[in-house]
Amino acid sequence: MLKVTVIGSGNVAQHFIKAFSKAGGVSIVQVYARSAESLLHLFPQQLITTDLSGLKEADIYIIAVTDNAITKVSAQLPFKNRLVVHTSGSVSIDALDSNNRRGVFYPLQTFSKNKEVDFNNIPICLESESAEDYELLATLANSISGNIFNITSNQRKALHVAAVFASNFTNHMYALANEICTEHKMPFDILKPLITETAAKVKELSPLKAQTGPAIRHDSKTIEAHLEMLTNDNQRNIYKTLTQSIQAHAEKL
Amino acid sequence: MLKVTVIGSGNVAQHFIKAFSKAGGVSIVQVYARSAESLLHLFPQQLITTDLSGLKEADIYIIAVTDNAITKVSAQLPFKNRLVVHTSGSVSIDALDSNNRRGVFYPLQTFSKNKEVDFNNIPICLESESAEDYELLATLANSISGNIFNITSNQRKALHVAAVFASNFTNHMYALANEICTEHKMPFDILKPLITETAAKVKELSPLKAQTGPAIRHDSKTIEAHLEMLTNDNQRNIYKTLTQSIQAHAEKL
Repeated sequence: MLKVTVIGSGNVAQHFIKAFSKAGGVSIVQVYARSAESLLHLFPQQLITTDLSGLKEADIYIIAVTDNAITKVSAQLPFKNRLVVHTSGSVSIDALDSNNRRGVFYPLQTFSKNKEVDFNNIPICLESESAEDYELLATLANSISGNIFNITSNQRKALHVAAVFASNFTNHMYALANEICTEHKMPFDILKPLITETAAKVKELSPLKAQTGPAIRHDSKTIEAHLEMLTNDNQRNIYKTLTQSIQAHAEKL
Repeated sequence: MLKVTVIGSGNVAQHFIKAFSKAGGVSIVQVYARSAESLLHLFPQQLITTDLSGLKEADIYIIAVTDNAITKVSAQLPFKNRLVVHTSGSVSIDALDSNNRRGVFYPLQTFSKNKEVDFNNIPICLESESAEDYELLATLANSISGNIFNITSNQRKALHVAAVFASNFTNHMYALANEICTEHKMPFDILKPLITETAAKVKELSPLKAQTGPAIRHDSKTIEAHLEMLTNDNQRNIYKTLTQSIQAHAEKL
């Protein structure tokens, strides 16, 4: 039985607590939170500590706190030579205090507080300083996900940027589409099947091959009509910038 | 039994031929194509005509050709006062010749030649000049889809722009994410669950509420690190433009 301690009480910490509680071969021995209240719906109070110096022995300590707090929290741990990992996409493994064996356990997904996620499909990106620790992390990751990747700190930084494009910026495209629908008194619902299909398509086709629309067709008449239709400079600027980028990428095909 | 003639042999025409062939209460009496060969895998040769003057009587004629050809094809039809519709998102109902009763039958979806689509979820946007013709179009649309909308030509133009954001530009976000993965020797596969979840999320939450990431958090440290990570001006320009737009929209919440 792999003994795990979760440090943190936010979104990511709570999703991990739920996932590990259900996982086979894993036991959460303790959770650290600044205040126990935020976790009482998930975890027994007697196993929650609000004092880092009260941490018990575990095989893996998972620091799931905000990026800026990782270094400070890792330096306050009251032990040495244990395996301590953080869960951040944008923080190097070196941000962890070198008193302990260091690693990264980064779930590549967008977590919302009120929406359940199925961990089984979530890629978990692992990094460690030794092959033995990698094995420990892989065992833990495999207990909740079938999708494990060995990713270095440098790769992970790039992956985090790629995820901003694939998720945050994609969601903003939905927001702009929603804005245009609202301006013309149409329900955003009308676009949802298209959004679903667009995401489904790149599971089978590369995004360059899946590209459709007036930009890739160099359909300048439609592009001009669209630019006239748009009601503000922000929409127009983004439309032009992305149309040019699509056309520049098409030339590489 | 509603008698339908499909005019065209491209992507959209072929998807309609497949869908109407399976639909109850609808019979495709004839298909027009410039050359019959492109349709022989879908439709019996004796019901394909390559001559517009050979078109037989039908309740609805569906012109599914490229946008630029709609006006010309509709003017060449050898009859009057019949219901003729086009299938384009960006062309006005007025582009059709006024010798016939005019309408629009626009399926809001991204069609690929080699990927089957389930018409049942595809929104079909209808427009007509009379209530009677609207009923005919609604009957036809309901035979293949559960998702019918009454949309004017002006709304449809705006909807087409919104669809460019929701689909074409979204797909380009995937392409840029793929580019970043490739540059750092990571498989694009690692991002696919995130892409699926991001699309699923806006079925339940509005895109403005679903927004996550460094831009909406005003996390300037991460934004700076990301800009340094990016390898070309196009990526950096898009990253900056969309980050600013996300922050400007957050202020409206």
